[in-house]
Amino acid sequence: MQNFNFYRPTDFYFGKDQENHVGEICQKHHISKVLLHFGGGSVVKSGLLDRVKDSLLKAGVSFELLGGVKPNPRDDLVYEGIKICREHKLELVLAVGGGSVLDSAKAIAMGTPYDGDFWDFFMGGKVPKTALPVGCIVTIAAAGSEGSNSCVINKVVDGVVKKKGSNFQTSVPLFSILNPELTYSVPPFQTACGAADIMCHVLERYFTNTKDVLVTDELCEGVLRTMVTMFPRVMKNPHDYETRAAIMWAGTLAHNNILGVDREQDWASHRLEMELSAYYDVAHGAGLTVLMPAWMEFVMPHNVMRFARFAVNVFGCEMDYEHPEKTAKAGISALRKLWGDAGLPLNFEELGAKASDIPLLVKNHGDNPEGHFVLLNKEDIEKIFTIAANYQH
Amino acid sequence: MQNFNFYRPTDFYFGKDQENHVGEICQKHHISKVLLHFGGGSVVKSGLLDRVKDSLLKAGVSFELLGGVKPNPRDDLVYEGIKICREHKLELVLAVGGGSVLDSAKAIAMGTPYDGDFWDFFMGGKVPKTALPVGCIVTIAAAGSEGSNSCVINKVVDGVVKKKGSNFQTSVPLFSILNPELTYSVPPFQTACGAADIMCHVLERYFTNTKDVLVTDELCEGVLRTMVTMFPRVMKNPHDYETRAAIMWAGTLAHNNILGVDREQDWASHRLEMELSAYYDVAHGAGLTVLMPAWMEFVMPHNVMRFARFAVNVFGCEMDYEHPEKTAKAGISALRKLWGDAGLPLNFEELGAKASDIPLLVKNHGDNPEGHFVLLNKEDIEKIFTIAANYQH
Repeated sequence: MQNFNFYRPTDFYFGKDQENHVGEICQKHHISKVLLHFGGGSVVKSGLLDRVKDSLLKAGVSFELLGGVKPNPRDDLVYEGIKICREHKLELVLAVGGGSVLDSAKAIAMGTPYDGDFWDFFMGGKVPKTALPVGCIVTIAAAGSEGSNSCVINKVVDGVVKKKGSNFQTSVPLFSILNPELTYSVPPFQTACGAADIMCHVLERYFTNTKDVLVTDELCEGVLRTMVTMFPRVMKNPHDYETRAAIMWAGTLAHNNILGVDREQDWASHRLEMELSAYYDVAHGAGLTVLMPAWMEFVMPHNVMRFARFAVNVFGCEMDYEHPEKTAKAGISALRKLWGDAGLPLNFEELGAKASDIPLLVKNHGDNPEGHFVLLNKEDIEKIFTIAANYQH
Repeated sequence: MQNFNFYRPTDFYFGKDQENHVGEICQKHHISKVLLHFGGGSVVKSGLLDRVKDSLLKAGVSFELLGGVKPNPRDDLVYEGIKICREHKLELVLAVGGGSVLDSAKAIAMGTPYDGDFWDFFMGGKVPKTALPVGCIVTIAAAGSEGSNSCVINKVVDGVVKKKGSNFQTSVPLFSILNPELTYSVPPFQTACGAADIMCHVLERYFTNTKDVLVTDELCEGVLRTMVTMFPRVMKNPHDYETRAAIMWAGTLAHNNILGVDREQDWASHRLEMELSAYYDVAHGAGLTVLMPAWMEFVMPHNVMRFARFAVNVFGCEMDYEHPEKTAKAGISALRKLWGDAGLPLNFEELGAKASDIPLLVKNHGDNPEGHFVLLNKEDIEKIFTIAANYQH
């Protein structure tokens, strides 16, 4: 087990109608002026935004509005948000929406008190000394950004979309409001992408070289088994509260790092997926269902028994003691089947990507090696993209 | 799943040598004057207290000293601590020791800014509006107080020792430092009591009437399985870092409520155990190993399948589909065997309690019914004490 610091001081409100208390929650945290940040029309049409405004006004919390966040959020809106926050001396960025809205809010929050360009925090090296707090009302179970220090932003640099992530303590939300009912209206494909993303957040932590991490392994497997149970259920009954609730809380647990405190984590699949979603503007979760199994297949020989354990403990595969690699492979196949059955893409073609683009994707990725479970060089990365491209459904 | 609020803003530092950074950790949280609160001679003799002082002084953090906390901590030292904190305008109570020291620190912290008697917060009804923050360096894996809102204090009222608990958000520590090496020197019996207490914190949450709580059930079972694995290991190899580390982190997880957010919890066994440890001054964990199996046996008919699941998923018992109550009983037996093998008491005699005292214990407990899984009246409580008294090893 590694030494660690775990500090996730987020105030979580989970369950039915919790969003209607957002005004009181702001009051509790001494917040009186916020930037209300959201995406497209759905939070408006559903009446959610109006309810949020009502609750804020009743609690004496004033707000400025900034809508228009798109999936794979862009830098231009971040700059606009920073301007508004500074002009009106706002005290918190309140995101109402999914992971993209929250990530945009986090970038605004770190850029507001900073003299330079917020993008400095995404190019590596620079750490924000302070940031506005962020709060959120989450409308899709996926990114886990509501409990994490993660933030991913897209910027066009020299005509190429650059997708970059940051992980700072100052980006951990002050409060997060999670009502599973708000996720009922998420369309099937986005629901499946979100559920896959949640599983991948656990998998990035589960495959580790750190020894003696039993207690956290148990937590990881427990969350993964829950997802295996809930995945087909949510596709069949999108309005089942308990299913949506289990997935939503699993999504928070999957990424607030309680499942990864004690270990070296991998994150190669997430880094490589960024090249896919930046280049093709595909959903992050869909990019992952194509790429993560390819990564698993490529790195599996590094620790066959770890993959066998995954297969047995998460999918109930039978252990083949003579040929553990068969069990290991069965686990990867079971994962692909789970995702494929939910209508998720399992290869480049289904994702809308092209094998002929692989050299470009590798080039865009740059020279940095990736991953920790296995350190991947450029050739390895090309091989993983190639496995993902050639997969049959 | 129930609606919930989960807010545990504790800054955890876990691992080797972390206690040597306590000064910097105080600085990080803008603390410059603390009450250094501890128990008996072991933190002095081991040199731990000196290292803590050194770290504080190096970081420019001044301190007052208050030692002498005993197991089942008493109110007299709490009053003394409150006086010192007020006199010197101290900003944080830093507990160095086990759960008793931390609970004493929490009581001092809530009493310091309060005009009335701190005991008001333990008699029910009164909620502290504010409290000093507490920090801790934990030397035994047991109470989980380092991540919880719990605080238990003893006071002599009309010649009888009253043991009372409180659960307030203001009692959640600001920071907690956990170095598994500091627990190497905990004697075997106290080690076993602590490990049992950890398991009981999970069990109080696991046995619930709330439906659809799969994800948290998975986490509970994962932590319990870890404890089943680690319990005999720590008794055999008390200096094995990884074993001590797994138990220590499991102890925090067991009681910071991540394993109970979504459900009605029980807590009858803890409440009834308080009568044992108040009357006989026995270790809390030892009282629990006598009482909790008796509670389990008494309430088992209420939900046989829940107990069968516990037996199968935690102890690997074989499911008897024709007679699930046999499986349920096998789980309770397995738990008692685990504890008995570690040298823990399994009945009144081994604990040093007397069956003839049961009427007095029931009377001391008062007229309040207890528990939620099954609501226990006075007669039920008497029956549970009687089962515990009559158990064979």
